[in-house]
Amino acid sequence: MRAPPRSGYRKTADPASLTLNTMTALNDRIDRLIRPELRALRAYQVPAAGELIKLDAMESPYPWPDWLVDAWLDRLRGVSLNRYPDPAAEALKVQMRSVLDVPQACGMILGNGSDELIQMIIQAVAVPGQCIMAPEPTFVMYRQIATVCSLEWAGVALRDDFSLEADDMLAAIERHRPAVVFLAWPNNPTGNLFDREVMEAVVSCAPGLVVVDEAYAPFTDESFLSAVPAYDNLLLLRTLSKIGFAGLRLGVLAGLPEWLAEIEKTRLPYNISSIDQLSGVFALEHYEVFRQQASTLRRHRSDLFAGMQALPGLQAYPSETNFILFRTLHGQAQAVYAELMAHGILIKNLDGSAPALRDCLRVTVGKPEENAAFLSALRRALPAAR
Amino acid sequence: MRAPPRSGYRKTADPASLTLNTMTALNDRIDRLIRPELRALRAYQVPAAGELIKLDAMESPYPWPDWLVDAWLDRLRGVSLNRYPDPAAEALKVQMRSVLDVPQACGMILGNGSDELIQMIIQAVAVPGQCIMAPEPTFVMYRQIATVCSLEWAGVALRDDFSLEADDMLAAIERHRPAVVFLAWPNNPTGNLFDREVMEAVVSCAPGLVVVDEAYAPFTDESFLSAVPAYDNLLLLRTLSKIGFAGLRLGVLAGLPEWLAEIEKTRLPYNISSIDQLSGVFALEHYEVFRQQASTLRRHRSDLFAGMQALPGLQAYPSETNFILFRTLHGQAQAVYAELMAHGILIKNLDGSAPALRDCLRVTVGKPEENAAFLSALRRALPAAR
Repeated sequence: MRAPPRSGYRKTADPASLTLNTMTALNDRIDRLIRPELRALRAYQVPAAGELIKLDAMESPYPWPDWLVDAWLDRLRGVSLNRYPDPAAEALKVQMRSVLDVPQACGMILGNGSDELIQMIIQAVAVPGQCIMAPEPTFVMYRQIATVCSLEWAGVALRDDFSLEADDMLAAIERHRPAVVFLAWPNNPTGNLFDREVMEAVVSCAPGLVVVDEAYAPFTDESFLSAVPAYDNLLLLRTLSKIGFAGLRLGVLAGLPEWLAEIEKTRLPYNISSIDQLSGVFALEHYEVFRQQASTLRRHRSDLFAGMQALPGLQAYPSETNFILFRTLHGQAQAVYAELMAHGILIKNLDGSAPALRDCLRVTVGKPEENAAFLSALRRALPAAR
Repeated sequence: MRAPPRSGYRKTADPASLTLNTMTALNDRIDRLIRPELRALRAYQVPAAGELIKLDAMESPYPWPDWLVDAWLDRLRGVSLNRYPDPAAEALKVQMRSVLDVPQACGMILGNGSDELIQMIIQAVAVPGQCIMAPEPTFVMYRQIATVCSLEWAGVALRDDFSLEADDMLAAIERHRPAVVFLAWPNNPTGNLFDREVMEAVVSCAPGLVVVDEAYAPFTDESFLSAVPAYDNLLLLRTLSKIGFAGLRLGVLAGLPEWLAEIEKTRLPYNISSIDQLSGVFALEHYEVFRQQASTLRRHRSDLFAGMQALPGLQAYPSETNFILFRTLHGQAQAVYAELMAHGILIKNLDGSAPALRDCLRVTVGKPEENAAFLSALRRALPAAR
């Protein structure tokens, strides 16, 4: 072990002192080998929260209760860590189907969060020149993953109130003939539901797949899930991240078995660890605990929204999710963000991420005391209210 | 929730009774949208083990000792399941570097097993027409993932004794100019180490990346890990699956930071769950337990190999891994496989998977009593020994 390489060929001399020539050779090779669009891409950034009140990432603010942690650890005792996971994750699928009411006519694929499922869908149709489409602004991973998979991207601008305009969308579909259309419903980071009839028109007119991403389903009454078997091109995504299982990484894709059989081929065989599978089954058995937390958060969301609307110099957008998007006076977003941070509160600054999100910030609904701390800090941070 | 869709467009009538027309429309759409090479692909198959002695999957036969399970569950109590995982998995990387002796000059990327890392590497260079190369027979996921990522595949045949012929390999590299060459070292499913100098020649002559996959490192004294910083195109893969953590799904890619910065962009931000991260840190803290198990398995491997060599009508290949490849008399592999299964023992039948593996089977080294049960059943199953 660790013997130095024995022969000469083209090595870089001493690893500790890479010469300028070698660095140039390395960079040349990287330039030649890595696709330009990947070279240009920035990796997804996640800020460190440290001791801050964390209202940036749409997480549930509620730790699992102690009795639930005890029961969970007791269950984990039975896992065989030396064995590979069940590649089909059958027990977890049975629980998912039952708890989420997945129609019997649908199949399911599980992923490490919905991110991995988005990647599988895009990989299944990945042909150079094919196009992936979504209204914008929306969840940034659709575009990020499309780029990594060498596909074209076509964003269609939402209206100023973030609603989806049928004519714009259908015209764009006609023009680009997208292989996949992603519709986040409710939409992130805007928080609203697009009109259901416009969504149906998109599904009906799209030449390819339409994926309705219901990541925020626990925080709204609306869903397309029961309608999935009624279309020959509709898939539906859910995740357990927002309802209290973000650390588990579990997403589910529901759709007609004929589609899923193809997408399944892009899945890495052991993509969900044994521990995550067993923890997922356990968590879903206790889903009512989390459903009630979600229902409580919806009440807190109303209070938080009312508190924000009462502040001058700020426009808050109605939300069907566990976050609220708001717009500051022009040019103030960064200062408000920094001021909140100085008061120990981390939210998300969206200013500069897209033209439609100019001056916009996004706050996740937390516990009442966290929301109160946020409102109080926000009041002091807003220039108009000083 | 669950309201039926309100408008008409192009739906499939009643989901429970999809008409022939609708099925045809669905199949037409799938044919149009899914790439032909994906249509032709079969998903990776994993047989159910049930009550069989499981010697098919290169797992450690040793469950975690009870005291270790207790300590592990105690540690898990601290995980915040409602929060997203650390996207950088810093604590786990620190442990990995220390326990696996990853050179300071190397960066690391963690994946859900090495499968996900293979996918990231291939995605980073995915340009239509680019080619991925490996000696064959080898780990089947290289080719499977290359196909899913729309890349060309070039396999280079190993010699009859499964050694790597330098001239063949270098000529193939000149001809195909592969973006990535994968070298499983030791190789799966053949169990042997390729000659180190031939490996070095491949690294030196390859125009693109060379990935040395040391999945079976715990079962051999050889490694390229310390040599990684000496080349400007060498990456190295390790996994914790074979040493007792298969249920955890943890792989690590080591390489120069300049390469990893590009490959990192293809990584989904939260690819390792919080539970797996914390469990990985814990398991690595107790790595000595598993290292000793691996060392014990190497002794059992010698005994098993000697037992197999003593049987007539069978050729066993020397192994630097935790499995042994063997060849039956012509046309007997399926019968031997079925006979073993009838005696309650599951191994892997490789006959038919590649011309070089005709009549071949692969057995994972188990506990002494499992190996003895296997040898006894094998003796009865071999036609020449009856």
